[in-house]
Amino acid sequence: MNKTERPLILVTNDDGIFAEGIKTLAQEMMAFGDVLVVAPDKPQSAMGHAITIHNFLRLREVEFMEGGRAYSCTGTPVDCVKLAVYHIIKGRPALLVSGINHGSNISINVLYSGTMSAAVEGALEEIPSIGFSLMDHSIEASFEHARPVIRSVTANVLKRGLTKGCCLNVNIPTEQDGPLRGVRICRQALGRWEDAVETRQDPAGHDYHWLRGTYTAHDPGEDTDVWATQHGYASVVPVQFDMTAHRELKLIKSWDHAL
Amino acid sequence: MNKTERPLILVTNDDGIFAEGIKTLAQEMMAFGDVLVVAPDKPQSAMGHAITIHNFLRLREVEFMEGGRAYSCTGTPVDCVKLAVYHIIKGRPALLVSGINHGSNISINVLYSGTMSAAVEGALEEIPSIGFSLMDHSIEASFEHARPVIRSVTANVLKRGLTKGCCLNVNIPTEQDGPLRGVRICRQALGRWEDAVETRQDPAGHDYHWLRGTYTAHDPGEDTDVWATQHGYASVVPVQFDMTAHRELKLIKSWDHAL
Repeated sequence: MNKTERPLILVTNDDGIFAEGIKTLAQEMMAFGDVLVVAPDKPQSAMGHAITIHNFLRLREVEFMEGGRAYSCTGTPVDCVKLAVYHIIKGRPALLVSGINHGSNISINVLYSGTMSAAVEGALEEIPSIGFSLMDHSIEASFEHARPVIRSVTANVLKRGLTKGCCLNVNIPTEQDGPLRGVRICRQALGRWEDAVETRQDPAGHDYHWLRGTYTAHDPGEDTDVWATQHGYASVVPVQFDMTAHRELKLIKSWDHAL
Repeated sequence: MNKTERPLILVTNDDGIFAEGIKTLAQEMMAFGDVLVVAPDKPQSAMGHAITIHNFLRLREVEFMEGGRAYSCTGTPVDCVKLAVYHIIKGRPALLVSGINHGSNISINVLYSGTMSAAVEGALEEIPSIGFSLMDHSIEASFEHARPVIRSVTANVLKRGLTKGCCLNVNIPTEQDGPLRGVRICRQALGRWEDAVETRQDPAGHDYHWLRGTYTAHDPGEDTDVWATQHGYASVVPVQFDMTAHRELKLIKSWDHAL
């Protein structure tokens, strides 16, 4: 393939540009095209679809890896996508990949996840977009396990594209859970963080609070991302940004809406 | 109605506890039940579904209005919901209302909006939840116009409830657009922020960047929130947190997923 024919691939994440996961992802992308990294300069986990509108943003070109241009950005993952598209590239890349996230983004975590919000922003921009997450928070997590999944899903998306308005949420169990049994296409499981608030006192005697959550599944379905990853599969959920509860429209229309 | 039988209503927003919109909303809620306000201590617009996991949170009881308990919180709108449910109430309110947002949350703004993310978090907690937005950013915006819509939608939700997994996104045109023609139940319009990045130089000669966006509609449908609000109606969109693109599942299953 001629160098100039190689697709441009935008790589971002929410763990920050110095995280191990984004290095693995950028390495894998080099086989598919020219790589541009634009990622937060510090961890931005759980930032959801936040954007920066009350402050300015800085970009800094950084050394990242041979053959790839890279910028760190002071903003959120979604800010990174916007700056890449509208300022650095001034156009749309052929593909956007986000991750590899250090930790799971299955089920309703898609809402909180900066990794997935970057992919959703890509979908809004009509860029084929994929978020990858390894279900392991530990600092020594091995990402080797994730490579075959990344190659397979990326090759499919580059070859076939994605329907407008849709991106992919890919979650990969850890190496400790044994060899991967394959890839399963799933729906987002119903579940919830059962939160706890841990209250402490500062040296002056004033309360402060830490959020702590325990994820609990509320969905016995075998077609979900929770089921798949618990049974040794990597899960792939197609995600859309149309949040309309279409099935509710008729019911709510039947109410009395007189003012 | 006996005082002890009055439903508990949690009021939050993303413009901060000192915004005019949340005062109007809390006033209206007093007619329906006992009011608890837990809202950010500063503007948190465009924070999406962000939560605070790398820092602690503070709560402060503040004077708000007679007959209503109120706390300001150092976190995001979604943090406010979590602290209210798991620390202050230690249970679920009968209703959660968020807003009145100073500015529109139609179309894909539902993704960026802290106001709507608080309502979506309420839905995750199985609390009937409504986000209200007035389509006027100006500081002198009159919220009087919004009151009949708030009363009508709130009365309906308290009487009929909402399907599990679903909340409402209510947008109200400004007074300047003329008298309201009524309420329309809609789907989320397809649209996008066509962003521009404005680059400036600081006194030391280094670049910094501001995000600027212009919303552009890509959806001619007359069943959308954009159409409704452009034609003098308040729009009500049922919103769900299942982001699965169910229609894509079959297509993506047909790909070759060998590792």
